[in-house]
Formats: sequence, structure tokens, C-alpha cells
Amino acid sequence: MKFDFLTDIRQRNPLIHNITNIVVANFSANGLLAIGASPFMSVVHEEMHDIAELADALLINLGGLSIAEVDAMLLAGQGMNQLGKAIVLDPVGAGATPYRQRKVHELLEKIQFSLIRGNAGEIAFLAGIDWQSKGVDAGQGDATQLAHITRQCAKKYQCIVAVSGEIDYISDGEQTFALANGTPLFPKITASGCLLGSICAAFLAVAEPKNYLNATLAACACYAIAGQVVAESLNPTDYGQFHVGLLNQLAKIQQQDIDQYLNLSKV
Amino acid sequence: MKFDFLTDIRQRNPLIHNITNIVVANFSANGLLAIGASPFMSVVHEEMHDIAELADALLINLGGLSIAEVDAMLLAGQGMNQLGKAIVLDPVGAGATPYRQRKVHELLEKIQFSLIRGNAGEIAFLAGIDWQSKGVDAGQGDATQLAHITRQCAKKYQCIVAVSGEIDYISDGEQTFALANGTPLFPKITASGCLLGSICAAFLAVAEPKNYLNATLAACACYAIAGQVVAESLNPTDYGQFHVGLLNQLAKIQQQDIDQYLNLSKV
Amino acid sequence: MKFDFLTDIRQRNPLIHNITNIVVANFSANGLLAIGASPFMSVVHEEMHDIAELADALLINLGGLSIAEVDAMLLAGQGMNQLGKAIVLDPVGAGATPYRQRKVHELLEKIQFSLIRGNAGEIAFLAGIDWQSKGVDAGQGDATQLAHITRQCAKKYQCIVAVSGEIDYISDGEQTFALANGTPLFPKITASGCLLGSICAAFLAVAEPKNYLNATLAACACYAIAGQVVAESLNPTDYGQFHVGLLNQLAKIQQQDIDQYLNLSKV
Repeated sequence: MKFDFLTDIRQRNPLIHNITNIVVANFSANGLLAIGASPFMSVVHEEMHDIAELADALLINLGGLSIAEVDAMLLAGQGMNQLGKAIVLDPVGAGATPYRQRKVHELLEKIQFSLIRGNAGEIAFLAGIDWQSKGVDAGQGDATQLAHITRQCAKKYQCIVAVSGEIDYISDGEQTFALANGTPLFPKITASGCLLGSICAAFLAVAEPKNYLNATLAACACYAIAGQVVAESLNPTDYGQFHVGLLNQLAKIQQQDIDQYLNLSKV
Repeated sequence: MKFDFLTDIRQRNPLIHNITNIVVANFSANGLLAIGASPFMSVVHEEMHDIAELADALLINLGGLSIAEVDAMLLAGQGMNQLGKAIVLDPVGAGATPYRQRKVHELLEKIQFSLIRGNAGEIAFLAGIDWQSKGVDAGQGDATQLAHITRQCAKKYQCIVAVSGEIDYISDGEQTFALANGTPLFPKITASGCLLGSICAAFLAVAEPKNYLNATLAACACYAIAGQVVAESLNPTDYGQFHVGLLNQLAKIQQQDIDQYLNLSKV
Repeated sequence: MKFDFLTDIRQRNPLIHNITNIVVANFSANGLLAIGASPFMSVVHEEMHDIAELADALLINLGGLSIAEVDAMLLAGQGMNQLGKAIVLDPVGAGATPYRQRKVHELLEKIQFSLIRGNAGEIAFLAGIDWQSKGVDAGQGDATQLAHITRQCAKKYQCIVAVSGEIDYISDGEQTFALANGTPLFPKITASGCLLGSICAAFLAVAEPKNYLNATLAACACYAIAGQVVAESLNPTDYGQFHVGLLNQLAKIQQQDIDQYLNLSKV
């Protein structure tokens, strides 16, 4: 497998429409700039279809989920689907409340996503598999379970699924991969999962649909390794420094860094 | 007085529902993660009661105050009140405009708060005492006045009140304490007061109601001392570094640091 | 030309009402605190006129542009116009969608702005001059063109116009200046242009209307040089550090730094 999406992103600066929330918007925009993409954030209904024309990919993050925001997601998603462009779903806290459960199912019915990226609890909920989770945080699980829920969710929604955690699992429903890169500092800063969703959108933006699995693997590897490299020079409590360092490293990371650190296996 | 709430927070990772605004949401979420709590942010009416079931405490911050947000605050507050869980009010700019005055009074009528944390101008307004303030910033006052408005506000609303400033004042209406820790860098970064409100919610989340005064003292001391320790190695204009360092220090601070620096007296 | 606005800002701490968006709100607030001003952010219709009484200047940023937000902008803008206070427009992505085009024209019809600050693509759109731009990013252009669109836009809307880029262009429709300070790191962090809009509002807040051109030149120079000084000690990929360092430097910068670095010429 060849990971050459990073170079494409930096040359083409794809425009990524993010429908996201007040917690993560700034960090996602900075992270997209760092990787070489261009962020655009709007939930104004009147311009969702026009932005679909401009954008190279769409990221829908369920953090904010008012009726008006859900309607913006539907309009934007349908616009992108009509144009055949990539759409990433980040199902933040998908199973946490009955309202959130209904809305994520509504989105999944009306939009064909290219990739769903979440934590184990969120993806298990979407796959319809019992799982323990609390609020927006993931629960625990063993490797076999994690690979299973990833694959099942991918089969169910006919798209790529990425489960983020100590080890990431990525599947297209047929092949499933385990990515053993990263750092325990990731869950210590808010929006680190959400930013990965946006980064994935940037990678998918420069990929053909047949390469969405590879683009997702490349995005997750690039992001996890960027964090891993930063963490090597930090203390375990340097949460603030990790935030800063991660943006630096996303801007700096090269394919050779990824090749050197990559710990990817098929499961 | 024994401060052992910090250990409890790190072991139990309480889920803190924050109803807050676009300026502070990211910093509050990062600060809560740093202290060991888990942030959840939503203003979607349909899920306010369900989140009350999940959450260990609620923080209501008046920064954003649209009708829809006020309704979310009322729903969330009533849900938490019914379950007997802790609710912190951060009355941002409470007296600044007639609209804001009406809305904060409506919230105080319909919700029983566990703690109100604000600056001197905001708390003086709630206590019904004349005070000079400008916008969302505090005015000036002497120690006797500050202790007085803190105590009066606590008596009036039958809850703990914390006034943040060069010296913090904390009262349950009976006992009043002065906390002489902190750094002049706190008011130089936005959301530093708002994050303290969220941190207080995390401390109250692991306390019994009879210990809310102690939990508030512990929260204010922990936060002020974290900032003080960071500031010792910074220049007075290192605002950006203070932001980063404060998150690091909140993640790192131990009870022994608090014991070493604590400057608390009864007034 | 004498630049003495910086001292005034630090002495008077003007209150700047920002109507802005979820991406930039935190950074704008921190930047305003760093320069010595005081941020206030609200889009609540009921208090727009009351805040106009309190505020020393208003910044309208088109990042968020829902109907409710546009109405808040109109109310706030009309309130400030009636009181003769400074209003800065940041026309984020002004030409990007038909909806955005209509709304920015509506704002320009109903509010008399003191200053419009944007990138070349946005200002060219407002001036009615053909230009290439993509989403919220600027396109390219030569010096003559850039000076021309700046001047034309200033003439058309009878206000100061500042075009940010590798070289900034500032005009009142009569005189036009080129400011060759800054660093390539500015467009690498989100909200750097938006923060400049807020910083400009702080400078205009302490200026007489007849000095708005000078205040804008001072604001742009102060900001560009702060970034330039920070960048001198950074690597080109230190995006995260630039974010932190810029806040430090805005807090630290003195008139003598500006005098030393200033590269301003009339065109």
C-alpha cells in the first residue's frame, strides 16, 4: 500500500466543509490548515448546496445537534451526495441520548457516508452491538470485539469505518486493519478525535472512491504518528504542549516519518 | 479542612454538562480533561433531561444567552434539581444589560444553584449591592466590601458563592473565606474565570451537598495555585504561554502542591 | 504620522463588541485582551442596543451568517451608527455563495462602516472587480491591482479599507498605503485575519473618526510586526507555537518595536 495522499493535500489544498460544534471548531480549522487543507465552516441552510459545489469534502460532526444544525447537515450531505463527493461522519455521543440516537439514524438513512469515524462506544451503537460507554467517551473492549464492531458497522452502512482508540481499527467491511500508533495524550485534549475526522475528510478529498480505505488508513496513520512523535519529547501531563506540538507536527510531518513509525497490521 | 476532592475527580472522571458559549467552550473542555473530569456540551432541548441523568454536575455559563439557550438552561437545571445533583452558575456579565438582568433573575427563580461563581461586579449585582463594573469585567473594591457582597449573595440565594479576583472570597452565608493565591495573568486570558466555574462543577460533582463549601474552596485553591505555579516561570506578558502552561499544570498538580502554596484565611 | 494608539488602548481598555463565529471567538477574545482591550461577544437581539451604549467599537465578522446572526449584526450596527461609534466589517467569504453576497450587500446598505478589512478576494468582490478566490481564502494578484481594489472599495463605501496579504494595502479612497510587514505564518493559523479585524476595532475605538486611517495603519502595522517578530525565532512549520507566540507578542509589543520594523510606503 502506498500512502501518497499527504503530498496531494499539500499541493491541492482541498476545501473541507466542516459542520461541527463550538468546542472543536477552532482546533479543527487549525489542524486542517496544518495538514495543508482549507477549512470552511457554515451551517446556514441557504448556502449548503452552494458550498457543496465549492467543497472537496464534507465533515459532519454530531457535537452540536439542534434541529437547525441537523437540517444543515441533511442539506449539505444531500448536496455532496448528488455531486459524488466524500462525506465523513463523526457520530459524537451517538448513543448517549434517545434524541441523539434518532438523529444519527435519520442522517444515516438520508445520507450515504464515505467514512464513519468514532470511538468504540459510538461505532458499537451504530453497529447495533451492546457496549458500555459514558457520554462522549469510549468504553473499553478487547481487540477481537473492536475489530468485529468496526467490520459490522462498515458492512451495515456500506462505507469505511474507523474506530479510534489506543489501537485504531479501520475496515471497509471486507478487510480490517489495526493501527498501533498514537499516544495516550490524544484523549487528554478535547477535539482530538474530532480533528481526526476532519483530517480524514482532507485525505478523502484527494482520493478516488475506490481508494477511500487507503485514504482513511493514511489519514489515521499520519495523525496517530504525528501525535506519537510529539509525545516522545513531552511529559505525560503536558496536555497544553501536546495541543501546540500536534499542530506543529501536522504541518511538519513527511511521508518518511510515517514510513518509519507505521505499525499497521491486517486482522 | 481536608482537600481530597482532587483524587476523587481523577479516579471517578465525573461527567460535567456545560452550557456555555463560543468563546470559552474549547478551553473549558480542555481544562476539565486536564483536571480529570469529562466534559459534555449540548444545548439541545430534547436531550437536556437525558443528559441530566448521565451527568454528575451541571455548569450554566451566561456568556451566550439567546432565548433558546436560556430555555436549555432551564430544562437542564430543572432536570438536575430533580435528581439532587450539583449546579454551578457563572453569571457572566449579569448586570451588563436589562435583558441579561431579567434572564439571570429568571434562572435564579427557577433553579436552585449549588454554587454561584463570578467576579465582584456580577456577584454584587446579584446581591443587589451597588457596584461599578464594565461589560464582563469586574470593578474594584476593598476586602471588607468583597467579603460582604459574597456573604450577602450566598444568604440571598441559599447557596455557596465564590467571588474571583486578586483575592478570591468564598462563602456559604455563614462562614466566609479569603483565598490569596493566583496570578495577575488569570484575567489576561479569556475564559479563565469561566474555566474555574467548570472546575468547581467537577469538584462539586464528587462532593456531598454538605461539603459543597469545602469542595468550592478546594476547587478555587487548586485552580489559583495551578496558575500561580505556572506564572512563577513566565514573564508578565506571556499570555499565550500561560494558557498552555495552565492546562499542563492542572493535569500535573498534586495535593502536596496545594498544601505548600495555600494561603487561605477566614474573614 | 505618529502611532500613539497603542498606549491609549492599554490605558483605556476599550470594550469591543464582537459579533463573530465559533471558529475565531476564543482567539479573537484572547488577542483583544493581549493588546489591552476588553472583548464582549453577544448576538442576543434584545441586548444589541444596550451593548452599543457600553461598547467603544463594534466588529462584525461574517463567518457565521444565519438569519438570526444577520439580524443581530443589523441591530448592533444601527445602534453604533446612531451613537457615532466605530464599526469594522470583516467580510469573511463575502463572495463565496449567492446567500453570502446578498447578506453582505444588505449589511453594507444599512450600516455605515468605519473600516472594512478583508483579503483580496473579499474586497475585490465588494468593490465589484473580477478576482479569483476560493472559499474563505484569498486569491493572488499584483501590487497595482491590489492597491486599485483597495482604493475602489474605500471610495465605493466611503470608509477605510484594509486588504490583508503578503503586503497589506490600506486606503481611505484618497491616500493608499502598502505595508510590507508580516510573516508567511499568518495564513497558516485560523482566525489570524479575523483577529486583525478585532485589533483594528480596538485601535479605532480610541481614535477620532478623522484619524481612522491612521488608526488602521497603526493596527495593521502593530499586528503584522508582532507576527514578524515572533516568526523570527520559529521554524516555518511551527504553527502551534506561532499561535502562542502571537498572543505573547501582542501583549509585549511596544511603540519602539513598531518604529524599528515598520516598512510602510505610499502607493
